[in-house]
Amino acid sequence: MSDPLRHAIGQLARFPGIGERTATRLAYWLLRQPPDVAEEIAAGVLALRTGMTRCSTCCNVAGSDPCPICAAPDRDAGLVCVVERPQDVAAIEASGGHRGRYHVLDGAVSPLDGVGPDDLRVRELLARVQRGEVREAVLATDPDVEGDATALYLAALLKPLGVRVTRLAHGISVGTEIEYADKSSVVRALENRREL
Amino acid sequence: MSDPLRHAIGQLARFPGIGERTATRLAYWLLRQPPDVAEEIAAGVLALRTGMTRCSTCCNVAGSDPCPICAAPDRDAGLVCVVERPQDVAAIEASGGHRGRYHVLDGAVSPLDGVGPDDLRVRELLARVQRGEVREAVLATDPDVEGDATALYLAALLKPLGVRVTRLAHGISVGTEIEYADKSSVVRALENRREL
Repeated sequence: MSDPLRHAIGQLARFPGIGERTATRLAYWLLRQPPDVAEEIAAGVLALRTGMTRCSTCCNVAGSDPCPICAAPDRDAGLVCVVERPQDVAAIEASGGHRGRYHVLDGAVSPLDGVGPDDLRVRELLARVQRGEVREAVLATDPDVEGDATALYLAALLKPLGVRVTRLAHGISVGTEIEYADKSSVVRALENRREL
Repeated sequence: MSDPLRHAIGQLARFPGIGERTATRLAYWLLRQPPDVAEEIAAGVLALRTGMTRCSTCCNVAGSDPCPICAAPDRDAGLVCVVERPQDVAAIEASGGHRGRYHVLDGAVSPLDGVGPDDLRVRELLARVQRGEVREAVLATDPDVEGDATALYLAALLKPLGVRVTRLAHGISVGTEIEYADKSSVVRALENRREL
């Protein structure tokens, strides 16, 4: 196998979930395409390096600073949804259910992995609170041990500063029959039951 | 979602077997890596465009022309293994069982797909034969309808020119118990049975 081919396979195999075999298949596929295809794909990958920045307000990855969401005048600036990752912003935006802004923590508190609050973008969130930007923090960290711990930590931090702190409701997902719902979701649904 | 991100996801999703969801996962993963990673992967993809050529002898994709195999003085130049695709060369080289050269057809005869002999690199193979370079052609096209048709076509073309034409043996693969062998392999194994 020639060197550029081996090189390309090695690079493609760096992607998570793409092994040597898949990388080989992708590389040979690229060789069969018109030359423009490799250039266009390479440019797309490079764009992630050169075209993306962090929004200095919400810490989301974005093509501009401030990001389009923080720059939008028609969004509720005081209602801040706090998420672990940029892709969570995309998921919540896709739902259309949030009309405020975001704050991307870049992870969750995880003592086992050595991730403490200082490793997250908590300082940036505090700065927003101190500038009086945040009326309500909707904590949308994952419903797992790390996400719950992060939510509790943030609640203890933000409530004394006069911020209303809420957490996304967890329960049985819409469309799931109770018979087939996973145990933890049923437990959460019972805990979070509402008066009718 | 910002434009460079959307762009990158669209480009990554061009790879076969990589859908929008996987491409999104890969793009977000890239965003979390040190900046060099995107550059290195992009360079690896680009190397396929800029660093690869076709060997003018065997038509294999290679980093140089002649390719390392055609340039190697210790290989049997008259023993030419004819394959459909560049990756077949890699597979046969990995087996260590072939000590000659190769010829890459770039496909197989497939009337249903409108692929005739003129669409393959048969002309280049004929030129090698006419230059007296080929003593034996080992036809290693796939054991399917198209591969078999291509082998028959090449045999009819090359035999009158005084070339010995052989075909890779097909049968039950080594390590497969007969009980679990697929039907076609058993049929081939019976047809190609050998005197002991």
